[in-house]
Amino acid sequence: MANHRSRRRICIVVTSRPSYGRIKSVLRAVQDHPDLELQLVLGASALLWRFGNVRQIIETDGFSPAATVFTIVEGETPTTMAKSTGLAILELATLFENLKPDIVLTIADRFETIATAVAASYMNIPVAHTQGGEVTGSIDESVRHAVTKLSHVHFPATRRAAENLVRMGEDPTTIHWTGCPSIDVIAHLDLALTPDIFTRYLGVGAAIDPGQPYLVVLQHPVTTEYGRGLDQINATLEAVTALDMQTVWMWPNVDAGSDDISKGLRVFRERHNPGKLHFYRNLAVEDYARLIHSAACLIGNSSSALREGSFLGVPAVNIGTRQMGREHGPNVLHVDHSAAAIERTIRTQIAHGRYERSMLFGDGSAGKRIADVLASVEPRVQKRLAY
Amino acid sequence: MANHRSRRRICIVVTSRPSYGRIKSVLRAVQDHPDLELQLVLGASALLWRFGNVRQIIETDGFSPAATVFTIVEGETPTTMAKSTGLAILELATLFENLKPDIVLTIADRFETIATAVAASYMNIPVAHTQGGEVTGSIDESVRHAVTKLSHVHFPATRRAAENLVRMGEDPTTIHWTGCPSIDVIAHLDLALTPDIFTRYLGVGAAIDPGQPYLVVLQHPVTTEYGRGLDQINATLEAVTALDMQTVWMWPNVDAGSDDISKGLRVFRERHNPGKLHFYRNLAVEDYARLIHSAACLIGNSSSALREGSFLGVPAVNIGTRQMGREHGPNVLHVDHSAAAIERTIRTQIAHGRYERSMLFGDGSAGKRIADVLASVEPRVQKRLAY
Amino acid sequence: MANHRSRRRICIVVTSRPSYGRIKSVLRAVQDHPDLELQLVLGASALLWRFGNVRQIIETDGFSPAATVFTIVEGETPTTMAKSTGLAILELATLFENLKPDIVLTIADRFETIATAVAASYMNIPVAHTQGGEVTGSIDESVRHAVTKLSHVHFPATRRAAENLVRMGEDPTTIHWTGCPSIDVIAHLDLALTPDIFTRYLGVGAAIDPGQPYLVVLQHPVTTEYGRGLDQINATLEAVTALDMQTVWMWPNVDAGSDDISKGLRVFRERHNPGKLHFYRNLAVEDYARLIHSAACLIGNSSSALREGSFLGVPAVNIGTRQMGREHGPNVLHVDHSAAAIERTIRTQIAHGRYERSMLFGDGSAGKRIADVLASVEPRVQKRLAY
Amino acid sequence: MANHRSRRRICIVVTSRPSYGRIKSVLRAVQDHPDLELQLVLGASALLWRFGNVRQIIETDGFSPAATVFTIVEGETPTTMAKSTGLAILELATLFENLKPDIVLTIADRFETIATAVAASYMNIPVAHTQGGEVTGSIDESVRHAVTKLSHVHFPATRRAAENLVRMGEDPTTIHWTGCPSIDVIAHLDLALTPDIFTRYLGVGAAIDPGQPYLVVLQHPVTTEYGRGLDQINATLEAVTALDMQTVWMWPNVDAGSDDISKGLRVFRERHNPGKLHFYRNLAVEDYARLIHSAACLIGNSSSALREGSFLGVPAVNIGTRQMGREHGPNVLHVDHSAAAIERTIRTQIAHGRYERSMLFGDGSAGKRIADVLASVEPRVQKRLAY
Repeated sequence: MANHRSRRRICIVVTSRPSYGRIKSVLRAVQDHPDLELQLVLGASALLWRFGNVRQIIETDGFSPAATVFTIVEGETPTTMAKSTGLAILELATLFENLKPDIVLTIADRFETIATAVAASYMNIPVAHTQGGEVTGSIDESVRHAVTKLSHVHFPATRRAAENLVRMGEDPTTIHWTGCPSIDVIAHLDLALTPDIFTRYLGVGAAIDPGQPYLVVLQHPVTTEYGRGLDQINATLEAVTALDMQTVWMWPNVDAGSDDISKGLRVFRERHNPGKLHFYRNLAVEDYARLIHSAACLIGNSSSALREGSFLGVPAVNIGTRQMGREHGPNVLHVDHSAAAIERTIRTQIAHGRYERSMLFGDGSAGKRIADVLASVEPRVQKRLAY
Repeated sequence: MANHRSRRRICIVVTSRPSYGRIKSVLRAVQDHPDLELQLVLGASALLWRFGNVRQIIETDGFSPAATVFTIVEGETPTTMAKSTGLAILELATLFENLKPDIVLTIADRFETIATAVAASYMNIPVAHTQGGEVTGSIDESVRHAVTKLSHVHFPATRRAAENLVRMGEDPTTIHWTGCPSIDVIAHLDLALTPDIFTRYLGVGAAIDPGQPYLVVLQHPVTTEYGRGLDQINATLEAVTALDMQTVWMWPNVDAGSDDISKGLRVFRERHNPGKLHFYRNLAVEDYARLIHSAACLIGNSSSALREGSFLGVPAVNIGTRQMGREHGPNVLHVDHSAAAIERTIRTQIAHGRYERSMLFGDGSAGKRIADVLASVEPRVQKRLAY
Repeated sequence: MANHRSRRRICIVVTSRPSYGRIKSVLRAVQDHPDLELQLVLGASALLWRFGNVRQIIETDGFSPAATVFTIVEGETPTTMAKSTGLAILELATLFENLKPDIVLTIADRFETIATAVAASYMNIPVAHTQGGEVTGSIDESVRHAVTKLSHVHFPATRRAAENLVRMGEDPTTIHWTGCPSIDVIAHLDLALTPDIFTRYLGVGAAIDPGQPYLVVLQHPVTTEYGRGLDQINATLEAVTALDMQTVWMWPNVDAGSDDISKGLRVFRERHNPGKLHFYRNLAVEDYARLIHSAACLIGNSSSALREGSFLGVPAVNIGTRQMGREHGPNVLHVDHSAAAIERTIRTQIAHGRYERSMLFGDGSAGKRIADVLASVEPRVQKRLAY
Repeated sequence: MANHRSRRRICIVVTSRPSYGRIKSVLRAVQDHPDLELQLVLGASALLWRFGNVRQIIETDGFSPAATVFTIVEGETPTTMAKSTGLAILELATLFENLKPDIVLTIADRFETIATAVAASYMNIPVAHTQGGEVTGSIDESVRHAVTKLSHVHFPATRRAAENLVRMGEDPTTIHWTGCPSIDVIAHLDLALTPDIFTRYLGVGAAIDPGQPYLVVLQHPVTTEYGRGLDQINATLEAVTALDMQTVWMWPNVDAGSDDISKGLRVFRERHNPGKLHFYRNLAVEDYARLIHSAACLIGNSSSALREGSFLGVPAVNIGTRQMGREHGPNVLHVDHSAAAIERTIRTQIAHGRYERSMLFGDGSAGKRIADVLASVEPRVQKRLAY
């Protein structure tokens, strides 16, 4: 019979809406594992109403946070992005000191994930990392690789990502190619649109008819192009307006420049009173998967177009540099921030329709594999460039 | 005539006694460069009396800090090392917002240097980094490579370090092999011991006679071996005591575990009232070079044994894992934390005497080269894995 | 001729929209005083777009911040209110260390003003304080008196407030009854509505016709009644809707519970698509004075109803406990959070119309008086209960 | 039978060596109370080896911290005193959010105690406060009264202190005159010197013979006289040296200026190698009581001379302004920082010998009374000046 004390404490820090979707199956697998104890910490934008009530969704899904911690310094500028990260390190260190985890897991490449990696690695707690080795734009590119350099156990999503980790000098025995947990959620899901999907969530704007074709837009700021967000979102708004289709528009995340995007959307809404747009803050992970699965086209610069979208075969238009260099299936076409090009490419994708499913990011069993590694791995705290 | 406004603002964050020695020639070269304006920020242990009055030394050398910022959370544990880093990010972000530097330079691999790199890179300010690409033990190994991944301009000290940066995926056009600025200071220095060198600095313990052979010991905690510091320092104390030579002992730096080392030294001092040891907190950069240059043997785990020591040909005994993997000249012998082995190896080195000078870490012109690059480089804020 | 060096440095920390209006005349008087140098620090919600672009208004008014500092931890909960205060202390201390002010002035009783008082008083920098000695509800009541206990120079607005300070044990020689600077701005102002007042500012909702009667509503959360904000705002919304008049509605400030108020307003807006409400984030100080001066009734729990409103004779309905105990002229009627009572009392006030001007809070010369005291006072850093 | 859930959670934040002695009997009484649950939080200098291993003493006494949190920003300057307070607010808020206490108790007037009061009061958690209403010098004077203004339940130690609270405008029904818990520890203690008292604790310097007369010195920095600490400690050192008696010298606390005192002591020790001084960092609360009870004279500016010293009748010489205005029994004589006056007054006190016991600060039952009030009180979160 399992001795409660002897279970390994796995602390997973969830800091945002998208991070939750990327780790949900791992949370489940760790919680269900006989040799593991889950310590879920919620912080950053995962606690903020403005970015979708992620906390409520997580609790509804049956997870109880071991601790919550507010760490976002308001402003949505490059300065506050840095400060939020500093604040998160300060406080996560105290939480780790009191929670005493055996391994800490940090997720992907959002700016605040480095806080988890710095706090834990400096405290000689082994750091596990998902989605290392991928290539993109934005500050995420720097963050991801820096987190890799602070991590002791790697769970890359793709084969090429795993190879990149080796090339970067990570010890190959610490690299576990498991596929991406974000695929797990959708691989075993009834993807049919639930009839109430557009009415169950708060939001503003026009009613969406699930029986008619619709677009989904999710466009985040590009932190390394801070100051250009307003022009960027206006190009997309112009293109989508020209298409005159019903459209589900998701609010952006908390990165620097988010305010610009939000302002652009608000000003547009007030000037044009658009009859076919509906704005949502957040959907449950499964409902978001259903939403994009049935979309005529997924537009913007969210990694979900390349990641979940590739698995689902969603026709997608990726705009700008934010995902530049990221692997994806055949479902993604790339354009610059030009309204004409965006519109034209959306039309192309609508005409094409659903693509073949791509297994690039995994087969739906990543969570289980990751939990098993976490239960058995014996990470060394002292790293060394493996050349 | 130089237009004051048009000069590039180069912000250099100095956070400790050793970092100052590693960057002094760059500070001078930037300050003297017609196209550059130096913004010197002093923080962390550089402001603390316990770690040597570095601030006073810096001001005596003719540099005026643009800002000072206390960032060390006291405790000298892994937890406080993380917290100090978080606090430094929080505050450096505010300083950068107000100082508006064009480039920020961070030094080497101490734990708090990642704070400078995170704050600046998140704020889209290009980060320049010295001593990237080297290999060692301790948390420094992780920190150094993570800082590389956040940096836009690299100034590696050795050819192999430069090659490592390329292998890690850094864009070769951003890598400038300049040699190490720490060599600059000593390359053009009269290395003769000044007669008052042992009396000008506060310190406790026996008088040191500069006309007689003496040892120098500088042993820092190994953060990744936190908790073993007391045993480690006791082995060294035992070995040095057995040699019964006059010995200059430097207090350790502020890393996690520093308290253990300090306690070990204090308890030893009180129990044994050693007649031949003198303890110092800090020496001017030049005096430290003179000190080790004339030493019969340099003992401990400071990188100065491998770096400045190689250039100077100082017989050195490197103990433990802290410098494991770092390049060095023929002057260094390695041992474990065994009193007998330490004593034996010191005797070997004393018998050998001075080694040939090694140019491995540069020829004494790094500061000037770095300033010239900083004046002309056009770094791109958006990084990308260069495979 | 004035020696630049010998001028006293007066650091004034402005942290919000209302604080700016409360101190603008002092900023001007200090800036214009031959013996004083103004060091304006902008922080907290004064930097946030969500709370009105106060920074831009301040700069348009001709003030240049010596430093800016983001200090709001997002969340708008009691927890984040505390954390924002802690963060502000951390960073203001560093700013004060670098700005080296001779006196620091903190404004009134918003939660973050204690940060200014703690940082400066702990650093042996004399603290000057406006609006001490008044009585209200909310956490402001505790904050105000705690700030008094940390302050060395007091500028109470009313005679009774000055007397309260004496009773609390403050040294009478440190108490300067100057009146309230918030009256200065409006005492010398052309109060006629400018024709474009309702179109110059961004905002959402119905057009307001300045030629027709209108209401103004400004209702903040009551921090000590956290969790009841939604009911409270709904009562006001119900009352105002029943009146069916054109209404200017101001967004609330950043106190804990602000999110509840904002959510209430947003949900109402979306459900009821109200035809006569217009929502604004911020107006210039002078335009806000004009706005309430011509209002048929000023509704909510803003101190401006009691303070500026008393001077202007604006019929006002004060709801709930937030201003409980604060002095005011005859223009204010008090009600609980009952829609019926609110509606009835608004009707009473509309029927009554403009009240007589009250000089309770001053005559319009407070700024000049405060600057003169700041130039001549010799505060003692060591306080002592004066009983 | 007691329902675990229904017990009131009383969170007590202990931040230093002296604070622990001042609250130990309350910790015990709360822990033993059937209706209360103790949540002990250890932070600030209570976690630092340099300031005595308070944490170990507390755990040896049978208390388990619910959380620990490092909050001292190193430097011991006025700036870092402010920053440490800000950091403590930031982190205590997170701890309170996760611990969910019903009442938070803060102790006396050390600079960091305001952090506890700000965090809890802003979070609508009632704050209980011991030692309010007293009068002293140093920043403590400001801190103490500011904490009173943030507190909802008062436990003054003396009648006059209780009266001062009423005069300051606190609601008399919230004031509970219980006496000082610091007296509890010593009222029921065997005060005879244990034979090993001078050997059980680490320390440096001469052996102390408990059979011979000895002095005890405890002199802290005066924060409001920052910069004068070195002269102040030198005057005391000169006086004590002239007396040529065996002397127990306690290291100072972490207030701004502590470094000056420590440096003064260290430099003196090294220059003069004093044969009769022994330096200690900390003693158990009971041993400290025994130590001063048998001392020929207690010298310095610690409140223990006035508080515990009055109860024990210890001849005491209080130096300078730090305790200026504080109540005490007949046992205390006051002097300035003049070596001659200090020496003369110590001789007077030695000649006088033990004084009568004074009950000014209580009778030894404060802890029990405080626990009973904490179990039954129904504090209102909304405060109001009670005039």
